[in-house]
Amino acid sequence: MRLVSIDDIAAAAARLNGRIVPTPLLPSSRLSQTLGVPVAVKAENLQHAGSFKVRGVFNALLARQSRGELPKGVATFSAGNHAAATAFGGSALGLPVVVCMPPNAVVTKVESVRRYGGEIVFTDDLFGTCQEVARERGYALLHPFDDPDIIAGQGTVGAEIIRDAPDADLVLVPVGGGGLISGVAAAVKGLRPGARVIGVEPVTSNAMTYALRMDAPAPLPSRPVSIADGLTAPFAGEHTLAHVRALVDEIIEIPEDAILRAWWELLDASKLLVEPSAAVGLAALRSGLVDPTAGATGTGTGTTVLVLSGGNVAPAGLARLDKVAEAV
Amino acid sequence: MRLVSIDDIAAAAARLNGRIVPTPLLPSSRLSQTLGVPVAVKAENLQHAGSFKVRGVFNALLARQSRGELPKGVATFSAGNHAAATAFGGSALGLPVVVCMPPNAVVTKVESVRRYGGEIVFTDDLFGTCQEVARERGYALLHPFDDPDIIAGQGTVGAEIIRDAPDADLVLVPVGGGGLISGVAAAVKGLRPGARVIGVEPVTSNAMTYALRMDAPAPLPSRPVSIADGLTAPFAGEHTLAHVRALVDEIIEIPEDAILRAWWELLDASKLLVEPSAAVGLAALRSGLVDPTAGATGTGTGTTVLVLSGGNVAPAGLARLDKVAEAV
Repeated sequence: MRLVSIDDIAAAAARLNGRIVPTPLLPSSRLSQTLGVPVAVKAENLQHAGSFKVRGVFNALLARQSRGELPKGVATFSAGNHAAATAFGGSALGLPVVVCMPPNAVVTKVESVRRYGGEIVFTDDLFGTCQEVARERGYALLHPFDDPDIIAGQGTVGAEIIRDAPDADLVLVPVGGGGLISGVAAAVKGLRPGARVIGVEPVTSNAMTYALRMDAPAPLPSRPVSIADGLTAPFAGEHTLAHVRALVDEIIEIPEDAILRAWWELLDASKLLVEPSAAVGLAALRSGLVDPTAGATGTGTGTTVLVLSGGNVAPAGLARLDKVAEAV
Repeated sequence: MRLVSIDDIAAAAARLNGRIVPTPLLPSSRLSQTLGVPVAVKAENLQHAGSFKVRGVFNALLARQSRGELPKGVATFSAGNHAAATAFGGSALGLPVVVCMPPNAVVTKVESVRRYGGEIVFTDDLFGTCQEVARERGYALLHPFDDPDIIAGQGTVGAEIIRDAPDADLVLVPVGGGGLISGVAAAVKGLRPGARVIGVEPVTSNAMTYALRMDAPAPLPSRPVSIADGLTAPFAGEHTLAHVRALVDEIIEIPEDAILRAWWELLDASKLLVEPSAAVGLAALRSGLVDPTAGATGTGTGTTVLVLSGGNVAPAGLARLDKVAEAV
């Protein structure tokens, strides 16, 4: 299978120019002090629609347009950030968008899709219903992660990281279906081959680890649940599995309590509102499963980058931090 | 009484250069859309020690140094952000710091003072104990807001706002003891006289309104309580009252439920972790008590700026947002 190249990512960056927020890479003096290495955070919570997802959506739609394949509408499926991002991107390009969402999707995510003018179909069979909607209306089906154009779009996150931190030795990336880490790894390994790229997923929602073990993007045996709701993809993808195999140094699994603790530490240290999914990288460092000083340069002084994937969290989600308060 | 001048603020900016974070002024597309005017937020939650307070502290200490009055230590009193900021500033300048705090101060604020090496004396008589400590040890007593050097330091927030948004027509500032709004008003009225500066305080903690009514910085009749804990100063100051009288267009009082709703809206729209105090400006706009289109230019197109004063909120504080979730 052909992997996304650094040229694909450069082409994506050109398409995205002016359409996305070039999010800041913010050094964190507090995390740097705590962890003993320079730490910076890539603030994709400040991205349009509150997560990195618009990068892939815009690139996929604009790449199709450049190939003369721009559809008359888009059908997609997602319980969360990809749903809002597709509504946002479709609205910007004047394309109608239908999003298939599970009936138990959280209210703020549903509101977010509606805010950007997306139509919602509630269904338990996300993929099947989405195929049906696409066929009936003649819309393009946009996969949330297993699509080379989506991966190349997410790769612009990695390219911006290396541009802003050319000394990066370690990049930690949250993993759901694997679109973000596939793109980031393609960019980082292309621009700075010695840097490590490590993916982190909840132990209770480990579709990528499962796919690596089964040697195929097999669906998880039971429906995944995690406080990191943005990472609860029930399966990885063919493309994302191939990228992870070829380009990612390691996939780490993290328990729920470690995510919850790291979430509060990250909020408090960065003063950025991020969703729990964004905290899995810090959780991996805090648990000792990743040594940030074992850098590619061997000096232990290169920057460790945490990709903060999104900021879409509801009040009820933040209320869970009370458990942290009790534990403190 | 001599008011702080634009030259005092320029001198403060020179002293603070390299010691503070020049915080970004971030345009908010979502708030702009909702309110119908260009809205930008001044992100002082990203400041060292999590609030604007370090500006005043550094300026007060460095101004004393330039006058040959640098003390051998600093005593101050505060339940919150000024406490952490003084510990941070003292530590950076190599000065021992004692902070008098109430016994019921929240744990995260106490930890914050200790993180920066500050000594804590718990007392119910904040001002009296602080005077005693200062006298016994030969330390300087640093007032948290009623000090021209503190006011000039906070004024750098206003100068940066006008530099980054020269078209600002309205600046909304949270009010506790009045140090921040005094400095911001001195800067804004000096640099762009036609812009409005409006202060906002909780109706349950309205020391400035009370001072205006009593024509003196009289202590509030009972101890103020608010979800905006950063604004619960029990009295205004002589200097701050004089600045507000001379330079501020209006002081608005806001009820607790409006602050809570605006807090969630602000978190969700800005993706910045801010404390409830930072949300009073948005609450004033949302309640209809301030019309952002009644700008100085008369065109209604100038930028409305919300000063986000700080980001120091504990998990238990965020858990209160559950009430918002119930109300949605």
